[in-house]
Amino acid sequence: MNTLVDGEWRTDAYETTSDDGSFERQETTFRDRVRDDPDAEFQPEDGRYHLYVSYACPWAHRTLVTRALKGLEEAISVSVVDPYRDEDGWQFTPEKDGCTRDHVHGVDYLRKLYVRADPDVTARVTVPVLWDKRENTIVNNESREIMRMLDTEFDEYGSRDVDLYPEGYREEIDRIIDSIYEPINNGVYRAGFATEQDPYDAAIDDLFSALEHWNDVLAEQRYLAGDRLTEADIAMFTTLVRFDNVYHTHFMCNVRQIRDYENLWPYLRDLYQTPGVADTVRMDHITEHYYTTHPDVNPHRIVARGPDPEFDAPHDRDEHPGSPPADLEAARAD
Amino acid sequence: MNTLVDGEWRTDAYETTSDDGSFERQETTFRDRVRDDPDAEFQPEDGRYHLYVSYACPWAHRTLVTRALKGLEEAISVSVVDPYRDEDGWQFTPEKDGCTRDHVHGVDYLRKLYVRADPDVTARVTVPVLWDKRENTIVNNESREIMRMLDTEFDEYGSRDVDLYPEGYREEIDRIIDSIYEPINNGVYRAGFATEQDPYDAAIDDLFSALEHWNDVLAEQRYLAGDRLTEADIAMFTTLVRFDNVYHTHFMCNVRQIRDYENLWPYLRDLYQTPGVADTVRMDHITEHYYTTHPDVNPHRIVARGPDPEFDAPHDRDEHPGSPPADLEAARAD
Repeated sequence: MNTLVDGEWRTDAYETTSDDGSFERQETTFRDRVRDDPDAEFQPEDGRYHLYVSYACPWAHRTLVTRALKGLEEAISVSVVDPYRDEDGWQFTPEKDGCTRDHVHGVDYLRKLYVRADPDVTARVTVPVLWDKRENTIVNNESREIMRMLDTEFDEYGSRDVDLYPEGYREEIDRIIDSIYEPINNGVYRAGFATEQDPYDAAIDDLFSALEHWNDVLAEQRYLAGDRLTEADIAMFTTLVRFDNVYHTHFMCNVRQIRDYENLWPYLRDLYQTPGVADTVRMDHITEHYYTTHPDVNPHRIVARGPDPEFDAPHDRDEHPGSPPADLEAARAD
Repeated sequence: MNTLVDGEWRTDAYETTSDDGSFERQETTFRDRVRDDPDAEFQPEDGRYHLYVSYACPWAHRTLVTRALKGLEEAISVSVVDPYRDEDGWQFTPEKDGCTRDHVHGVDYLRKLYVRADPDVTARVTVPVLWDKRENTIVNNESREIMRMLDTEFDEYGSRDVDLYPEGYREEIDRIIDSIYEPINNGVYRAGFATEQDPYDAAIDDLFSALEHWNDVLAEQRYLAGDRLTEADIAMFTTLVRFDNVYHTHFMCNVRQIRDYENLWPYLRDLYQTPGVADTVRMDHITEHYYTTHPDVNPHRIVARGPDPEFDAPHDRDEHPGSPPADLEAARAD
């Protein structure tokens, strides 16, 4: 499902599970880069690029948080799809709260952008998508790479002096983003989309071992990479913020809730309360998406009520070394 | 499903949901009573009655707890069905840990008892069943009534002097058992088996309002009916003990876990640690049953890992007025 094959929409072509019942995520397709370099095909420019996201999707959410922290709202415009994804894939329903029209093309389905970018495309149709309005094509649809581009290539156009990939931390940031992907970011999907007990059990073991590890690390430092807020925290955040209301129930990741962890829980609130971040979190879109879009997991598409998120509750993370970038602290004071 | 119609097994006859998508529990069928009365058809006797249960089923669990608290293990024998219930209903799989053969008839499926009791029976085939070995029939298959009979009619045969329906408390006990049934005991099923959003939402509202209410009540008193352990506590216990590992995830009752409640959680541990009770709790049977038996709720039948139950953790409930019956306190000291 959600797949274009040679430009044709197919609802039967995409298999998410392998023979042993484990979930296998397919690779994304468009992997060009915006680079702040006069020789680059895609150079940073004010207003040239457009971001397609879903508030529901943790991958798209990474790019929204980065855009907010950097203050790129003016430079990079956004369209938001409907949280419910049916057999025709992500769609635009501007009449729905929090959703928008496709501001660039005015089409009804996201897949039509993919075909406009490449009439013969073979690709899963996913968010986020970074669209180039000048070249009329997709630059990239891989969240980690879009996050990196927004962070490192658009400094000239952001309203805040915020560096989420600072010199001296880069190796560690990349290592952390790598290391949390399989057990945590993708781990919740491996648990939730497993069709056999063994792959589920393996995913649960990996997930909760990794959460335990990072809970221990966060006893000693404010952020994943130490005393600096970085892209690694964004990559962790978009999974943690969905955990108790969605992954714990819908994907049966029910060993512990994030709110049960001594350090992960205040860490999550700290990130949520960082200026700009809360506005990127639409729990209504998150819960509607997951509970209604996977009938194979939740056949009656009933949206589970879930706990009160309580992300605004006080935390004591500022007792640890480190603080958000000065421009973000200043925003908090405003 | 699980229904006999005129003595014939039917897998298509039983509808659990009404037109509006809400779950409707069908009435049980055999409603005779064992009475300690010389004129009664079914009189209490040592060894005459046999109990059929599943460790998984909260209704059957009520009768097991009552039997344990009263010390009726010698007087009333027990057969235990397989926690997994397929299209043929509850079955006997003595090779499986915790399960037994049908000690009375040696049949393979529970439904065969129902037909032996009445060849033309029309009934849902459920546990618990109280079987009369002398008259070769089912006395009763309604958990609340079996609990009451074991509690009040078999004092002569129990090894402990324990009264769970004491004079002076009876009206209150009946009122409580009535009042917790719809929102709590059956409420988790109404949430989990709803096929539309509105009945789910109504069930969740009822359930968590009732839990909140009893959490408040238990701030002031040790047990539901005050200072005495009663049948009302048993009726509450078998739902609470399943809550965090099953109902919270599988039935999407995910607003709070029992361990999040200031008083319900120590209350649950207090009951669990009452002599005789812990041996009636088989969490492996409970989780296997729910997660594998309802493909309409959990299509891949994967058993969710769940939290460590921690029912053995200390509690401070003895600071409240009241204590278990003296014979149970003595058993604890042993």
